[in-house]
Amino acid sequence: MTPPAPRFVEVGPRDGLQNEPRAVPLEAKVAFVNLLSRSGLREIEAGAFVSPKAVPQMADSDQVFARIDRQSGVLYSALVPNERGLERALEAKIGKAAVFTAASETFNQKNINCSITESIERFKPVIQRADALRLPLRAYISTAFFCPYEGYVAPDKVVPVVDRLCALGVKELSIGDTIGRASPKDVRALLDVLLKRVRVECVFLHFHDTFGMAIANALTAWNEYGVSGFDASTGGVGGCPYAPGAGGNVAMEDLVFAFAASGAKVDVDVRKLQDAGSLIEKHLGHLMPSRLSKIALR
Amino acid sequence: MTPPAPRFVEVGPRDGLQNEPRAVPLEAKVAFVNLLSRSGLREIEAGAFVSPKAVPQMADSDQVFARIDRQSGVLYSALVPNERGLERALEAKIGKAAVFTAASETFNQKNINCSITESIERFKPVIQRADALRLPLRAYISTAFFCPYEGYVAPDKVVPVVDRLCALGVKELSIGDTIGRASPKDVRALLDVLLKRVRVECVFLHFHDTFGMAIANALTAWNEYGVSGFDASTGGVGGCPYAPGAGGNVAMEDLVFAFAASGAKVDVDVRKLQDAGSLIEKHLGHLMPSRLSKIALR
Repeated sequence: MTPPAPRFVEVGPRDGLQNEPRAVPLEAKVAFVNLLSRSGLREIEAGAFVSPKAVPQMADSDQVFARIDRQSGVLYSALVPNERGLERALEAKIGKAAVFTAASETFNQKNINCSITESIERFKPVIQRADALRLPLRAYISTAFFCPYEGYVAPDKVVPVVDRLCALGVKELSIGDTIGRASPKDVRALLDVLLKRVRVECVFLHFHDTFGMAIANALTAWNEYGVSGFDASTGGVGGCPYAPGAGGNVAMEDLVFAFAASGAKVDVDVRKLQDAGSLIEKHLGHLMPSRLSKIALR
Repeated sequence: MTPPAPRFVEVGPRDGLQNEPRAVPLEAKVAFVNLLSRSGLREIEAGAFVSPKAVPQMADSDQVFARIDRQSGVLYSALVPNERGLERALEAKIGKAAVFTAASETFNQKNINCSITESIERFKPVIQRADALRLPLRAYISTAFFCPYEGYVAPDKVVPVVDRLCALGVKELSIGDTIGRASPKDVRALLDVLLKRVRVECVFLHFHDTFGMAIANALTAWNEYGVSGFDASTGGVGGCPYAPGAGGNVAMEDLVFAFAASGAKVDVDVRKLQDAGSLIEKHLGHLMPSRLSKIALR
């Protein structure tokens, strides 16, 4: 029996570009999102309404949202850390908000300078407001497998964070292997625990491909557990390939190809993803890590 | 239950370098093999005794074998197409011979200018002589999943070639996804058929990573079928990353890391593979595709 059709969330314009060392011009970001939104992808995280000082790459998210050519049937989401961010995001007419915390205390401190509890307190009003507005919402849990500071993160560190988010009414979780070090074995260990607490439809997995296991992880979660939600970034952008430990998101075109080759029902046009990747690659100053960015499909 | 310990065969100095567009100097090849043979790898395909006109990259294999610093416990093998090649190979004191054919007639014609039957006739004396000398031998079957000319290659195209090789007494098969297009689904389809005919210990899988599914394929074969033999090339060398359709072998360091992360018993030192990769990368004129060549392990 073939598992359910995959639901892909494109995070290149946000998680990808946010971590690229070279600033990408506004026009290129807009063109990137526009090409992505004509590929068959149904959801694109197009920006972040965070502090421009902390994340200069996302300082122009208001303008990205103002200029993109919105396609019907495509959801344009954005990262929103707190109430002030949500105000900007609502003005920009986002279609979905994403809040974020982590499973590792040390990572949360170094990444956003607060504890896990404090981060949840900060975005609690975002969840409540989104709920009142019937704005869809997802919550990211970073470092849910490995932490760059604490090493292996056991499933029992992830569970309490999941429980608190579910108690706040969060219906969609994006579980992140932030440093791209998880193997299928680690994915099984977490899903064995997680899927006893949350419905499989609520779970998105967010893999980075630092160690080359992201495709194997995604296919394992889909084939063995029926997980259908996967984040990826076209080109595999994000995380400079020359910086130790910082691998980009798994490449959307590679992931889509792998699912199609595995018999999944896939409505995304890989060639259009390749076109979008080629466009953004010109602005990055390095070759993209995706495998499919290197080859022409016949 | 953890599947059996993986047996890795390093094919970078042969299948890898043979397909690199830039000629690598003899000294670098020797240094590459020497570093690889101190990494814990037990088998290294160090050259090919084929026509120097057809494969100029391998013209100096005699000298590679003469100059390497042989480690005890390491098998140094070479590709041998016919009796004349075997004479050269025996003079060079190879530890194992490898013959080759394909599952696709068109590929065999274009690659070595003869039919599958003719290729087997050519290397039959090699098998007989190796048997008489008690020289270990493997047989490659290329394009066992996809052919660049014929497309999908069904398992029932592979089976007759396997049967003929087994009838000649071949004890080790390396089943190749030459263009790197197979998915875990294709691997399952072939192994379902193949493992009814040959013992699992006889099977090595030889993946290229053109489409990014090689690690997923290897872990699937190991985890679900107990296949333990895998070919790979350190750095993922081979197949220029800029040439359409030509992806290199799956990178040995990525494969070894993935198996170790999956709980396999692995005696290969990934850092030493990274060192070997760094050495050879300087001679290739491009960055290597392996994921682990981009990061420093702590």
